[in-house]
Amino acid sequence: MPATVPCVRLSVEPSLVATDYPFSHRIRVRFAETDAMGIVHHSRYLLYLEETRVAYLRALGHPYPEMRSEGVDYAVLECFVQYRQPLRFDEEIDVHLQLASATRTSFQMSYLVTVDGEVRASGVTVHGCVTAAGRPTRLPQWLGELAGA
Amino acid sequence: MPATVPCVRLSVEPSLVATDYPFSHRIRVRFAETDAMGIVHHSRYLLYLEETRVAYLRALGHPYPEMRSEGVDYAVLECFVQYRQPLRFDEEIDVHLQLASATRTSFQMSYLVTVDGEVRASGVTVHGCVTAAGRPTRLPQWLGELAGA
Amino acid sequence: MPATVPCVRLSVEPSLVATDYPFSHRIRVRFAETDAMGIVHHSRYLLYLEETRVAYLRALGHPYPEMRSEGVDYAVLECFVQYRQPLRFDEEIDVHLQLASATRTSFQMSYLVTVDGEVRASGVTVHGCVTAAGRPTRLPQWLGELAGA
Amino acid sequence: MPATVPCVRLSVEPSLVATDYPFSHRIRVRFAETDAMGIVHHSRYLLYLEETRVAYLRALGHPYPEMRSEGVDYAVLECFVQYRQPLRFDEEIDVHLQLASATRTSFQMSYLVTVDGEVRASGVTVHGCVTAAGRPTRLPQWLGELAGA
Repeated sequence: MPATVPCVRLSVEPSLVATDYPFSHRIRVRFAETDAMGIVHHSRYLLYLEETRVAYLRALGHPYPEMRSEGVDYAVLECFVQYRQPLRFDEEIDVHLQLASATRTSFQMSYLVTVDGEVRASGVTVHGCVTAAGRPTRLPQWLGELAGA
Repeated sequence: MPATVPCVRLSVEPSLVATDYPFSHRIRVRFAETDAMGIVHHSRYLLYLEETRVAYLRALGHPYPEMRSEGVDYAVLECFVQYRQPLRFDEEIDVHLQLASATRTSFQMSYLVTVDGEVRASGVTVHGCVTAAGRPTRLPQWLGELAGA
Repeated sequence: MPATVPCVRLSVEPSLVATDYPFSHRIRVRFAETDAMGIVHHSRYLLYLEETRVAYLRALGHPYPEMRSEGVDYAVLECFVQYRQPLRFDEEIDVHLQLASATRTSFQMSYLVTVDGEVRASGVTVHGCVTAAGRPTRLPQWLGELAGA
Repeated sequence: MPATVPCVRLSVEPSLVATDYPFSHRIRVRFAETDAMGIVHHSRYLLYLEETRVAYLRALGHPYPEMRSEGVDYAVLECFVQYRQPLRFDEEIDVHLQLASATRTSFQMSYLVTVDGEVRASGVTVHGCVTAAGRPTRLPQWLGELAGA
Protein backbone atom coordinates (compact mmCIF):
# COMPACT_ATOMS: atom_id res chain seq x y z
CA MET A 1 0.00 0.00 0.00
CA PRO A 2 1.47 3.39 -0.95
CA ALA A 3 2.90 5.21 2.03
CA THR A 4 1.22 8.37 0.77
CA VAL A 5 -2.22 7.18 1.81
CA PRO A 6 -2.56 8.59 5.30
CA CYS A 7 -5.39 6.30 6.33
CA VAL A 8 -3.24 3.24 5.78
CA ARG A 9 -1.23 2.83 8.93
CA LEU A 10 0.30 -0.49 8.03
CA SER A 11 3.93 0.24 7.30
CA VAL A 12 6.16 -2.53 8.59
CA GLU A 13 7.60 -5.32 6.53
CA PRO A 14 7.64 -8.64 8.39
CA SER A 15 11.08 -10.23 8.52
CA LEU A 16 11.29 -13.73 7.05
CA VAL A 17 13.92 -14.73 9.62
CA ALA A 18 12.39 -16.37 12.67
CA THR A 19 15.22 -15.29 14.97
CA ASP A 20 14.30 -11.64 14.36
CA TYR A 21 11.19 -12.23 16.44
CA PRO A 22 11.40 -12.09 20.26
CA PHE A 23 8.35 -14.27 20.88
CA SER A 24 6.85 -17.37 19.40
CA HIS A 25 3.85 -19.52 20.11
CA ARG A 26 3.03 -23.04 18.92
CA ILE A 27 -0.43 -23.99 17.60
CA ARG A 28 -1.62 -27.24 16.10
CA VAL A 29 -3.88 -26.93 13.05
CA ARG A 30 -7.43 -28.12 13.65
CA PHE A 31 -9.32 -30.15 11.10
CA ALA A 32 -12.11 -27.57 11.19
CA GLU A 33 -9.62 -24.97 9.96
CA THR A 34 -9.05 -26.72 6.64
CA ASP A 35 -11.21 -26.22 3.55
CA ALA A 36 -12.12 -28.22 0.47
CA MET A 37 -8.73 -27.41 -1.11
CA GLY A 38 -7.31 -29.66 1.61
CA ILE A 39 -5.37 -26.81 3.23
CA VAL A 40 -5.99 -24.27 5.95
CA HIS A 41 -8.50 -21.65 4.83
CA HIS A 42 -6.88 -18.24 4.46
CA SER A 43 -9.21 -16.61 7.01
CA ARG A 44 -8.01 -18.91 9.82
CA TYR A 45 -4.53 -17.42 9.85
CA LEU A 46 -6.00 -14.37 11.57
CA LEU A 47 -7.08 -16.66 14.41
CA TYR A 48 -3.51 -17.90 14.76
CA LEU A 49 -2.13 -14.37 14.83
CA GLU A 50 -4.69 -13.34 17.43
CA GLU A 51 -4.02 -16.35 19.66
CA THR A 52 -0.33 -15.47 19.48
CA ARG A 53 -0.95 -11.82 20.39
CA VAL A 54 -2.92 -12.94 23.42
CA ALA A 55 -0.14 -15.35 24.44
CA TYR A 56 2.43 -12.58 24.00
CA LEU A 57 0.55 -10.14 26.23
CA ARG A 58 0.14 -12.88 28.83
CA ALA A 59 3.88 -13.62 28.70
CA LEU A 60 4.54 -9.90 29.22
CA GLY A 61 2.44 -9.95 32.38
CA HIS A 62 -0.38 -7.93 30.84
CA PRO A 63 -3.05 -10.50 30.02
CA TYR A 64 -5.58 -9.25 27.53
CA PRO A 65 -8.67 -10.17 29.61
CA GLU A 66 -7.24 -8.07 32.45
CA MET A 67 -6.78 -5.11 30.15
CA ARG A 68 -10.29 -5.50 28.81
CA SER A 69 -11.68 -5.55 32.34
CA GLU A 70 -9.80 -2.29 32.97
CA GLY A 71 -11.65 -0.72 30.06
CA VAL A 72 -8.96 -0.73 27.39
CA ASP A 73 -9.41 -2.73 24.24
CA TYR A 74 -7.32 -3.19 21.12
CA ALA A 75 -9.37 -2.78 18.00
CA VAL A 76 -7.87 -4.27 14.86
CA LEU A 77 -7.52 -1.41 12.39
CA GLU A 78 -5.79 -3.23 9.56
CA CYS A 79 -4.40 -6.62 8.72
CA PHE A 80 -2.19 -8.02 6.02
CA VAL A 81 -1.31 -11.65 5.41
CA GLN A 82 0.95 -13.14 2.79
CA TYR A 83 0.40 -16.85 2.17
CA ARG A 84 3.63 -18.46 0.98
CA GLN A 85 3.13 -22.18 1.45
CA PRO A 86 -0.08 -23.87 2.58
CA LEU A 87 -0.68 -25.17 6.07
CA ARG A 88 -2.22 -28.60 6.53
CA PHE A 89 -4.30 -30.37 9.12
CA ASP A 90 -2.43 -31.43 12.26
CA GLU A 91 0.72 -29.48 11.45
CA GLU A 92 2.31 -27.75 14.39
CA ILE A 93 2.92 -24.16 13.46
CA ASP A 94 5.15 -21.64 15.18
CA VAL A 95 3.83 -18.11 15.05
CA HIS A 96 6.63 -15.62 15.67
CA LEU A 97 5.62 -12.17 16.81
CA GLN A 98 7.29 -8.79 17.01
CA LEU A 99 5.87 -5.55 18.36
CA ALA A 100 6.89 -3.54 15.33
CA SER A 101 6.07 0.08 15.96
CA ALA A 102 3.72 2.34 17.85
CA THR A 103 2.17 5.78 17.83
CA ARG A 104 0.41 7.46 20.76
CA THR A 105 -2.79 5.51 20.13
CA SER A 106 -1.86 2.60 17.85
CA PHE A 107 0.71 -0.12 17.40
CA GLN A 108 1.72 -2.68 14.81
CA MET A 109 2.71 -6.28 15.20
CA SER A 110 4.43 -8.37 12.59
CA TYR A 111 4.27 -12.14 12.36
CA LEU A 112 6.05 -15.03 10.74
CA VAL A 113 4.41 -18.46 10.54
CA THR A 114 6.77 -21.41 10.22
CA VAL A 115 6.55 -25.19 10.37
CA ASP A 116 9.78 -26.96 11.27
CA GLY A 117 11.60 -23.76 10.43
CA GLU A 118 10.06 -23.46 6.96
CA VAL A 119 8.28 -20.16 6.25
CA ARG A 120 4.61 -20.58 5.43
CA ALA A 121 3.17 -17.11 5.89
CA SER A 122 3.88 -13.63 7.18
CA GLY A 123 1.59 -10.88 8.32
CA VAL A 124 1.04 -7.55 10.01
CA THR A 125 -1.77 -6.30 12.19
CA VAL A 126 -2.38 -2.69 13.18
CA HIS A 127 -4.22 -2.01 16.42
CA GLY A 128 -5.74 1.02 18.00
CA CYS A 129 -6.32 1.45 21.69
CA VAL A 130 -9.98 2.14 22.36
CA THR A 131 -12.13 2.63 25.42
CA ALA A 132 -15.05 0.34 26.20
CA ALA A 133 -17.19 2.88 24.33
CA GLY A 134 -15.01 2.44 21.24
CA ARG A 135 -13.21 5.81 21.38
CA PRO A 136 -9.47 6.01 20.63
CA THR A 137 -7.33 6.35 23.72
CA ARG A 138 -3.63 6.39 24.58
CA LEU A 139 -1.60 3.20 24.67
CA PRO A 140 -0.84 1.95 28.16
CA GLN A 141 2.56 3.33 29.17
CA TRP A 142 4.27 -0.08 29.29
CA LEU A 143 3.18 -0.84 25.75
CA GLY A 144 4.40 2.48 24.38
CA GLU A 145 7.74 1.98 26.10
CA LEU A 146 8.04 -1.55 24.83
CA ALA A 147 7.47 -0.33 21.29
CA GLY A 148 9.94 2.49 21.73
CA ALA A 149 7.21 5.03 20.98
CA MET B 1 3.58 -2.21 1.77
CA PRO B 2 6.59 -0.72 -0.03
CA ALA B 3 6.42 -1.32 -3.79
CA THR B 4 10.08 -2.27 -3.72
CA VAL B 5 9.41 -5.59 -2.05
CA PRO B 6 9.00 -7.94 -4.98
CA CYS B 7 7.33 -10.70 -3.03
CA VAL B 8 4.44 -8.43 -2.13
CA ARG B 9 2.11 -8.48 -5.09
CA LEU B 10 -0.62 -6.43 -3.46
CA SER B 11 -0.50 -3.07 -5.16
CA VAL B 12 -3.97 -1.67 -5.66
CA GLU B 13 -5.64 0.91 -3.48
CA PRO B 14 -9.33 0.21 -2.96
CA SER B 15 -11.53 3.14 -3.88
CA LEU B 16 -13.78 4.42 -1.10
CA VAL B 17 -16.50 5.31 -3.60
CA ALA B 18 -19.03 2.52 -4.03
CA THR B 19 -19.92 3.56 -7.58
CA ASP B 20 -16.35 2.80 -8.68
CA TYR B 21 -17.15 -0.88 -8.25
CA PRO B 22 -18.96 -2.77 -11.02
CA PHE B 23 -20.37 -5.47 -8.77
CA SER B 24 -21.88 -5.67 -5.34
CA HIS B 25 -23.33 -8.39 -3.16
CA ARG B 26 -25.47 -8.13 -0.06
CA ILE B 27 -24.83 -10.22 3.06
CA ARG B 28 -26.54 -10.13 6.43
CA VAL B 29 -24.23 -10.41 9.46
CA ARG B 30 -24.70 -13.61 11.44
CA PHE B 31 -24.70 -13.63 15.21
CA ALA B 32 -21.94 -16.25 15.14
CA GLU B 33 -19.73 -13.72 13.34
CA THR B 34 -19.68 -11.31 16.27
CA ASP B 35 -17.24 -11.47 19.17
CA ALA B 36 -17.18 -10.41 22.80
CA MET B 37 -16.52 -6.79 21.76
CA GLY B 38 -20.06 -6.87 20.42
CA ILE B 39 -18.95 -6.37 16.82
CA VAL B 40 -18.02 -8.57 13.90
CA HIS B 41 -14.68 -10.29 14.49
CA HIS B 42 -12.02 -9.03 12.10
CA SER B 43 -11.37 -12.49 10.63
CA ARG B 44 -14.96 -12.82 9.36
CA TYR B 45 -14.55 -10.04 6.82
CA LEU B 46 -12.50 -12.45 4.74
CA LEU B 47 -15.57 -14.70 4.57
CA TYR B 48 -17.61 -11.80 3.23
CA LEU B 49 -15.00 -10.97 0.60
CA GLU B 50 -14.84 -14.61 -0.46
CA GLU B 51 -18.61 -15.00 -0.68
CA THR B 52 -18.66 -11.88 -2.87
CA ARG B 53 -15.89 -13.20 -5.15
CA VAL B 54 -17.86 -16.39 -5.64
CA ALA B 55 -21.04 -14.42 -6.40
CA TYR B 56 -19.11 -12.27 -8.88
CA LEU B 57 -17.73 -15.24 -10.78
CA ARG B 58 -21.20 -16.77 -10.88
CA ALA B 59 -22.63 -13.51 -12.23
CA LEU B 60 -19.95 -13.54 -14.93
CA GLY B 61 -21.05 -17.02 -16.01
CA HIS B 62 -17.95 -18.69 -14.65
CA PRO B 63 -19.05 -20.29 -11.40
CA TYR B 64 -16.18 -21.16 -9.14
CA PRO B 65 -17.25 -24.77 -8.52
CA GLU B 66 -17.23 -25.30 -12.29
CA MET B 67 -13.71 -23.93 -12.55
CA ARG B 68 -12.57 -26.11 -9.70
CA SER B 69 -14.05 -29.17 -11.38
CA GLU B 70 -12.05 -28.23 -14.50
CA GLY B 71 -8.87 -28.34 -12.45
CA VAL B 72 -8.19 -24.64 -11.95
CA ASP B 73 -8.20 -23.15 -8.51
CA TYR B 74 -7.54 -19.67 -7.17
CA ALA B 75 -5.18 -19.74 -4.24
CA VAL B 76 -5.24 -16.67 -2.03
CA LEU B 77 -1.70 -15.28 -2.07
CA GLU B 78 -2.24 -12.13 -0.03
CA CYS B 79 -4.98 -10.24 1.68
CA PHE B 80 -5.34 -6.82 3.18
CA VAL B 81 -8.27 -5.44 5.13
CA GLN B 82 -8.77 -2.00 6.61
CA TYR B 83 -11.44 -1.81 9.31
CA ARG B 84 -12.94 1.68 9.39
CA GLN B 85 -16.18 1.32 11.32
CA PRO B 86 -17.39 -1.83 13.05
CA LEU B 87 -20.07 -4.12 11.68
CA ARG B 88 -22.79 -5.35 13.98
CA PHE B 89 -25.09 -8.34 14.20
CA ASP B 90 -27.96 -8.38 11.71
CA GLU B 91 -26.66 -5.47 9.66
CA GLU B 92 -27.04 -5.88 5.92
CA ILE B 93 -23.72 -5.17 4.31
CA ASP B 94 -22.97 -4.46 0.68
CA VAL B 95 -19.66 -5.79 -0.48
CA HIS B 96 -18.53 -4.00 -3.62
CA LEU B 97 -15.96 -5.75 -5.79
CA GLN B 98 -13.64 -4.74 -8.56
CA LEU B 99 -11.25 -6.92 -10.52
CA ALA B 100 -8.33 -4.62 -10.06
CA SER B 101 -5.40 -5.96 -12.02
CA ALA B 102 -3.90 -9.14 -13.37
CA THR B 103 -0.64 -10.70 -14.47
CA ARG B 104 -0.26 -13.91 -16.49
CA THR B 105 -0.85 -16.07 -13.41
CA SER B 106 -2.37 -13.83 -10.76
CA PHE B 107 -5.02 -11.21 -10.26
CA GLN B 108 -6.13 -8.74 -7.60
CA MET B 109 -9.55 -7.81 -6.42
CA SER B 110 -10.44 -4.78 -4.36
CA TYR B 111 -13.43 -4.48 -2.09
CA LEU B 112 -15.46 -1.87 -0.30
CA VAL B 113 -17.84 -2.83 2.50
CA THR B 114 -20.71 -0.43 3.12
CA VAL B 115 -23.91 -0.37 5.19
CA ASP B 116 -26.59 2.01 3.93
CA GLY B 117 -23.91 3.71 1.88
CA GLU B 118 -21.58 4.25 4.84
CA VAL B 119 -18.07 2.88 4.42
CA ARG B 120 -17.16 0.27 7.01
CA ALA B 121 -14.12 -1.47 5.54
CA SER B 122 -12.03 -1.88 2.44
CA GLY B 123 -9.75 -4.63 1.30
CA VAL B 124 -7.68 -6.30 -1.37
CA THR B 125 -7.04 -9.95 -2.15
CA VAL B 126 -4.38 -11.29 -4.47
CA HIS B 127 -4.97 -14.63 -6.12
CA GLY B 128 -2.84 -17.03 -8.09
CA CYS B 129 -4.16 -19.55 -10.56
CA VAL B 130 -3.08 -23.03 -9.56
CA THR B 131 -3.66 -26.52 -10.87
CA ALA B 132 -5.30 -29.18 -8.73
CA ALA B 133 -1.75 -30.19 -7.75
CA GLY B 134 -1.11 -26.67 -6.50
CA ARG B 135 1.22 -25.53 -9.28
CA PRO B 136 0.90 -22.00 -10.72
CA THR B 137 -0.82 -21.89 -14.08
CA ARG B 138 -2.08 -19.25 -16.52
CA LEU B 139 -5.28 -17.36 -15.87
CA PRO B 140 -8.23 -18.50 -17.95
CA GLN B 141 -8.38 -16.32 -21.06
CA TRP B 142 -11.69 -14.65 -20.16
CA LEU B 143 -10.32 -13.60 -16.80
CA GLY B 144 -7.16 -12.12 -18.25
CA GLU B 145 -9.20 -10.20 -20.81
CA LEU B 146 -11.59 -8.96 -18.17
CA ALA B 147 -8.71 -7.64 -16.14
CA GLY B 148 -7.15 -6.05 -19.19
CA ALA B 149 -3.99 -8.11 -18.68
CA MET C 1 -31.22 -39.19 24.98
CA PRO C 2 -33.36 -41.06 27.51
CA ALA C 3 -36.41 -39.07 28.56
CA THR C 4 -35.69 -40.08 32.14
CA VAL C 5 -32.71 -37.76 32.38
CA PRO C 6 -34.22 -34.58 33.77
CA CYS C 7 -31.35 -32.34 32.77
CA VAL C 8 -31.84 -33.18 29.11
CA ARG C 9 -34.62 -30.98 27.87
CA LEU C 10 -34.34 -31.97 24.23
CA SER C 11 -37.38 -34.08 23.54
CA VAL C 12 -38.73 -33.40 20.08
CA GLU C 13 -38.13 -35.52 17.03
CA PRO C 14 -37.64 -33.45 13.88
CA SER C 15 -39.98 -34.43 11.08
CA LEU C 16 -38.29 -35.46 7.84
CA VAL C 17 -41.11 -33.96 5.79
CA ALA C 18 -40.40 -30.39 4.73
CA THR C 19 -44.08 -29.45 4.52
CA ASP C 20 -44.42 -30.08 8.26
CA TYR C 21 -42.40 -26.93 8.85
CA PRO C 22 -44.11 -23.53 8.74
CA PHE C 23 -40.96 -21.56 7.89
CA SER C 24 -37.95 -22.01 5.69
CA HIS C 25 -34.90 -19.98 4.85
CA ARG C 26 -32.43 -20.38 2.00
CA ILE C 27 -28.67 -20.19 2.51
CA ARG C 28 -25.86 -20.74 0.05
CA VAL C 29 -22.89 -22.76 1.34
CA ARG C 30 -19.70 -20.73 1.58
CA PHE C 31 -16.37 -22.15 0.55
CA ALA C 32 -14.99 -21.32 4.00
CA GLU C 33 -17.59 -23.68 5.48
CA THR C 34 -16.12 -26.75 3.80
CA ASP C 35 -13.31 -28.84 5.23
CA ALA C 36 -10.58 -31.11 3.87
CA MET C 37 -13.12 -33.93 3.38
CA GLY C 38 -14.54 -31.70 0.63
CA ILE C 39 -17.86 -31.26 2.42
CA VAL C 40 -19.34 -28.81 4.89
CA HIS C 41 -17.79 -29.21 8.34
CA HIS C 42 -20.28 -30.55 10.85
CA SER C 43 -19.91 -27.53 13.16
CA ARG C 44 -21.16 -25.11 10.45
CA TYR C 45 -24.67 -26.56 10.47
CA LEU C 46 -25.22 -24.78 13.77
CA LEU C 47 -24.56 -21.50 11.96
CA TYR C 48 -27.24 -22.36 9.42
CA LEU C 49 -29.75 -23.22 12.14
CA GLU C 50 -28.99 -19.99 13.96
CA GLU C 51 -29.29 -17.84 10.83
CA THR C 52 -32.66 -19.48 10.21
CA ARG C 53 -33.85 -18.83 13.79
CA VAL C 54 -32.95 -15.18 13.39
CA ALA C 55 -34.77 -15.00 10.05
CA TYR C 56 -37.81 -16.66 11.62
CA LEU C 57 -38.00 -14.21 14.51
CA ARG C 58 -37.64 -11.34 12.04
CA ALA C 59 -40.46 -12.76 9.91
CA LEU C 60 -42.61 -12.96 13.05
CA GLY C 61 -42.05 -9.27 13.68
CA HIS C 62 -39.84 -9.88 16.71
CA PRO C 63 -36.31 -9.34 15.42
CA TYR C 64 -33.69 -10.83 17.66
CA PRO C 65 -31.53 -7.67 17.91
CA GLU C 66 -34.61 -5.82 19.17
CA MET C 67 -35.22 -8.45 21.82
CA ARG C 68 -31.61 -8.32 22.88
CA SER C 69 -31.80 -4.54 23.20
CA GLU C 70 -34.84 -5.05 25.47
CA GLY C 71 -32.73 -7.20 27.76
CA VAL C 72 -33.94 -10.68 26.82
CA ASP C 73 -31.60 -13.17 25.29
CA TYR C 74 -31.99 -16.77 24.17
CA ALA C 75 -29.19 -18.93 25.47
CA VAL C 76 -28.67 -22.20 23.65
CA LEU C 77 -29.08 -24.94 26.25
CA GLU C 78 -28.78 -27.97 24.03
CA CYS C 79 -28.35 -28.88 20.40
CA PHE C 80 -28.65 -32.02 18.38
CA VAL C 81 -27.80 -32.51 14.72
CA GLN C 82 -28.13 -35.59 12.58
CA TYR C 83 -26.06 -35.54 9.40
CA ARG C 84 -27.71 -37.65 6.72
CA GLN C 85 -26.08 -36.60 3.47
CA PRO C 86 -23.18 -34.17 3.12
CA LEU C 87 -23.54 -30.58 2.01
CA ARG C 88 -21.15 -29.19 -0.56
CA PHE C 89 -19.73 -25.83 -1.51
CA ASP C 90 -22.13 -23.50 -3.33
CA GLU C 91 -25.19 -25.65 -2.73
CA GLU C 92 -28.32 -23.74 -1.89
CA ILE C 93 -29.82 -25.22 1.21
CA ASP C 94 -33.30 -24.76 2.60
CA VAL C 95 -33.47 -24.79 6.36
CA HIS C 96 -36.99 -25.56 7.54
CA LEU C 97 -37.86 -24.54 11.07
CA GLN C 98 -40.61 -25.35 13.50
CA LEU C 99 -41.16 -23.97 16.98
CA ALA C 100 -41.60 -27.35 18.58
CA SER C 101 -42.48 -26.88 22.21
CA ALA C 102 -42.07 -24.52 25.12
CA THR C 103 -42.04 -24.36 28.89
CA ARG C 104 -42.31 -21.20 30.99
CA THR C 105 -38.64 -20.38 30.46
CA SER C 106 -37.47 -22.49 27.53
CA PHE C 107 -38.45 -23.54 24.03
CA GLN C 108 -37.35 -26.00 21.39
CA MET C 109 -36.99 -25.61 17.68
CA SER C 110 -36.64 -28.41 15.19
CA TYR C 111 -35.02 -28.13 11.79
CA LEU C 112 -34.80 -29.95 8.53
CA VAL C 113 -32.08 -29.14 6.01
CA THR C 114 -32.83 -29.96 2.39
CA VAL C 115 -31.28 -29.31 -1.02
CA ASP C 116 -33.70 -29.48 -3.94
CA GLY C 117 -36.10 -31.31 -1.67
CA GLU C 118 -33.56 -33.95 -0.64
CA VAL C 119 -33.03 -34.33 3.11
CA ARG C 120 -29.47 -33.66 4.19
CA ALA C 121 -29.73 -33.12 7.94
CA SER C 122 -32.11 -32.57 10.79
CA GLY C 123 -31.67 -31.00 14.18
CA VAL C 124 -33.09 -29.61 17.37
CA THR C 125 -32.04 -26.70 19.53
CA VAL C 126 -33.25 -25.97 23.05
CA HIS C 127 -33.20 -22.38 24.25
CA GLY C 128 -33.65 -20.72 27.57
CA CYS C 129 -34.78 -17.15 28.04
CA VAL C 130 -32.21 -15.25 30.04
CA THR C 131 -31.77 -11.68 31.22
CA ALA C 132 -28.77 -9.61 30.21
CA ALA C 133 -27.18 -10.83 33.45
CA GLY C 134 -27.65 -14.42 32.34
CA ARG C 135 -30.48 -15.37 34.73
CA PRO C 136 -33.40 -17.47 33.50
CA THR C 137 -36.54 -15.47 32.85
CA ARG C 138 -40.01 -16.06 31.42
CA LEU C 139 -40.56 -16.36 27.69
CA PRO C 140 -42.10 -13.29 26.09
CA GLN C 141 -45.87 -13.78 25.99
CA TRP C 142 -46.10 -13.91 22.19
CA LEU C 143 -43.50 -16.68 22.07
CA GLY C 144 -45.23 -18.77 24.70
CA GLU C 145 -48.54 -18.38 22.86
CA LEU C 146 -46.97 -19.26 19.55
CA ALA C 147 -45.58 -22.45 21.05
CA GLY C 148 -48.90 -23.27 22.66
CA ALA C 149 -47.27 -23.30 26.09
CA MET D 1 -34.14 -38.73 21.41
CA PRO D 2 -36.43 -41.77 21.73
CA ALA D 3 -34.54 -45.04 21.41
CA THR D 4 -37.30 -46.28 19.14
CA VAL D 5 -36.15 -44.10 16.26
CA PRO D 6 -33.78 -46.39 14.40
CA CYS D 7 -32.06 -43.66 12.47
CA VAL D 8 -30.90 -41.99 15.67
CA ARG D 9 -27.79 -43.81 16.74
CA LEU D 10 -26.91 -41.51 19.62
CA SER D 11 -27.62 -43.51 22.75
CA VAL D 12 -25.01 -42.82 25.41
CA GLU D 13 -25.42 -40.48 28.32
CA PRO D 14 -22.22 -38.56 29.11
CA SER D 15 -21.11 -38.93 32.70
CA LEU D 16 -20.76 -35.68 34.63
CA VAL D 17 -17.83 -37.07 36.63
CA ALA D 18 -14.50 -36.21 35.06
CA THR D 19 -12.75 -39.27 36.50
CA ASP D 20 -15.05 -41.52 34.47
CA TYR D 21 -13.18 -40.40 31.37
CA PRO D 22 -9.88 -42.07 30.46
CA PHE D 23 -8.54 -39.14 28.41
CA SER D 24 -8.52 -35.40 28.68
CA HIS D 25 -7.14 -32.56 26.62
CA ARG D 26 -6.62 -28.92 27.56
CA ILE D 27 -7.59 -26.06 25.25
CA ARG D 28 -7.51 -22.32 25.86
CA VAL D 29 -10.52 -20.37 24.59
CA ARG D 30 -9.69 -18.00 21.75
CA PHE D 31 -11.15 -14.53 21.56
CA ALA D 32 -12.47 -15.32 18.09
CA GLU D 33 -14.57 -18.09 19.63
CA THR D 34 -16.65 -15.69 21.71
CA ASP D 35 -19.77 -13.92 20.48
CA ALA D 36 -21.64 -10.71 21.28
CA MET D 37 -23.15 -12.33 24.39
CA GLY D 38 -19.60 -12.23 25.76
CA ILE D 39 -19.34 -16.02 25.95
CA VAL D 40 -18.16 -18.81 23.68
CA HIS D 41 -20.56 -19.31 20.77
CA HIS D 42 -22.34 -22.65 21.01
CA SER D 43 -21.03 -23.84 17.64
CA ARG D 44 -17.40 -23.64 18.78
CA TYR D 45 -17.80 -26.46 21.29
CA LEU D 46 -17.81 -28.85 18.35
CA LEU D 47 -14.32 -27.61 17.49
CA TYR D 48 -13.16 -28.41 21.01
CA LEU D 49 -14.64 -31.90 20.86
CA GLU D 50 -13.01 -32.52 17.50
CA GLU D 51 -9.60 -31.27 18.62
CA THR D 52 -9.88 -33.62 21.59
CA ARG D 53 -10.82 -36.61 19.40
CA VAL D 54 -7.78 -35.95 17.25
CA ALA D 55 -5.55 -35.69 20.34
CA TYR D 56 -7.02 -38.94 21.67
CA LEU D 57 -6.34 -40.87 18.47
CA ARG D 58 -2.81 -39.48 18.43
CA ALA D 59 -2.28 -40.57 22.05
CA LEU D 60 -3.49 -44.06 21.08
CA GLY D 61 -0.84 -44.24 18.36
CA HIS D 62 -3.37 -43.96 15.55
CA PRO D 63 -3.11 -40.37 14.39
CA TYR D 64 -6.08 -39.25 12.37
CA PRO D 65 -4.06 -37.85 9.42
CA GLU D 66 -2.41 -41.27 9.08
CA MET D 67 -5.79 -42.97 9.00
CA ARG D 68 -7.04 -40.53 6.42
CA SER D 69 -4.00 -41.20 4.24
CA GLU D 70 -4.83 -44.92 4.48
CA GLY D 71 -8.27 -44.21 3.06
CA VAL D 72 -10.41 -44.43 6.18
CA ASP D 73 -12.30 -41.42 7.42
CA TYR D 74 -14.66 -40.84 10.30
CA ALA D 75 -17.77 -39.02 9.21
CA VAL D 76 -19.73 -37.31 11.95
CA LEU D 77 -23.22 -38.84 11.86
CA GLU D 78 -24.73 -37.10 14.86
CA CYS D 79 -23.78 -34.71 17.60
CA PHE D 80 -25.35 -33.60 20.83
CA VAL D 81 -24.14 -30.86 23.15
CA GLN D 82 -25.58 -29.71 26.44
CA TYR D 83 -24.46 -26.27 27.55
CA ARG D 84 -24.52 -26.01 31.34
CA GLN D 85 -22.41 -22.99 32.17
CA PRO D 86 -20.87 -20.59 29.67
CA LEU D 87 -17.23 -20.60 28.66
CA ARG D 88 -15.36 -17.33 28.49
CA PHE D 89 -12.41 -15.92 26.61
CA ASP D 90 -9.02 -17.13 27.80
CA GLU D 91 -10.38 -19.84 30.05
CA GLU D 92 -8.47 -23.09 29.99
CA ILE D 93 -10.89 -25.89 29.43
CA ASP D 94 -10.38 -29.60 29.96
CA VAL D 95 -12.23 -31.76 27.49
CA HIS D 96 -12.63 -35.27 28.85
CA LEU D 97 -13.31 -38.01 26.32
CA GLN D 98 -14.56 -41.56 26.47
CA LEU D 99 -15.00 -44.01 23.61
CA ALA D 100 -18.52 -44.94 24.59
CA SER D 101 -19.74 -47.68 22.31
CA ALA D 102 -19.29 -49.13 18.85
CA THR D 103 -21.02 -51.15 16.18
CA ARG D 104 -19.34 -52.78 13.18
CA THR D 105 -19.25 -49.51 11.28
CA SER D 106 -19.83 -46.75 13.83
CA PHE D 107 -18.76 -45.59 17.26
CA GLN D 108 -19.79 -43.02 19.83
CA MET D 109 -17.69 -40.76 21.96
CA SER D 110 -18.89 -38.87 25.00
CA TYR D 111 -17.35 -35.71 26.36
CA LEU D 112 -17.31 -33.60 29.46
CA VAL D 113 -16.02 -30.02 29.39
CA THR D 114 -14.73 -28.64 32.67
CA VAL D 115 -12.87 -25.56 33.88
CA ASP D 116 -11.01 -25.99 37.15
CA GLY D 117 -13.11 -29.08 37.79
CA GLU D 118 -16.42 -27.28 37.25
CA VAL D 119 -18.71 -28.82 34.65
CA ARG D 120 -19.51 -26.48 31.78
CA ALA D 121 -20.85 -28.77 29.06
CA SER D 122 -21.25 -32.36 28.01
CA GLY D 123 -21.71 -33.94 24.62
CA VAL D 124 -21.79 -36.97 22.41
CA THR D 125 -20.67 -37.51 18.84
CA VAL D 126 -21.52 -40.49 16.67
CA HIS D 127 -19.12 -41.42 13.89
CA GLY D 128 -19.26 -43.74 10.95
CA CYS D 129 -16.24 -45.23 9.25
CA VAL D 130 -16.25 -44.32 5.59
CA THR D 131 -13.95 -44.90 2.65
CA ALA D 132 -12.41 -42.03 0.72
CA ALA D 133 -15.41 -42.34 -1.62
CA GLY D 134 -17.74 -41.84 1.34
CA ARG D 135 -19.06 -45.39 1.62
CA PRO D 136 -19.55 -46.99 5.04
CA THR D 137 -16.81 -49.46 5.95
CA ARG D 138 -15.80 -51.54 8.98
CA LEU D 139 -14.07 -49.96 11.93
CA PRO D 140 -10.34 -50.65 12.10
CA GLN D 141 -9.81 -53.72 14.32
CA TRP D 142 -8.00 -51.80 17.08
CA LEU D 143 -10.86 -49.35 17.38
CA GLY D 144 -13.51 -52.05 17.58
CA GLU D 145 -11.50 -53.85 20.26
CA LEU D 146 -10.98 -50.67 22.20
CA ALA D 147 -14.71 -50.02 22.21
CA GLY D 148 -15.44 -53.59 23.21
CA ALA D 149 -17.54 -54.07 20.07
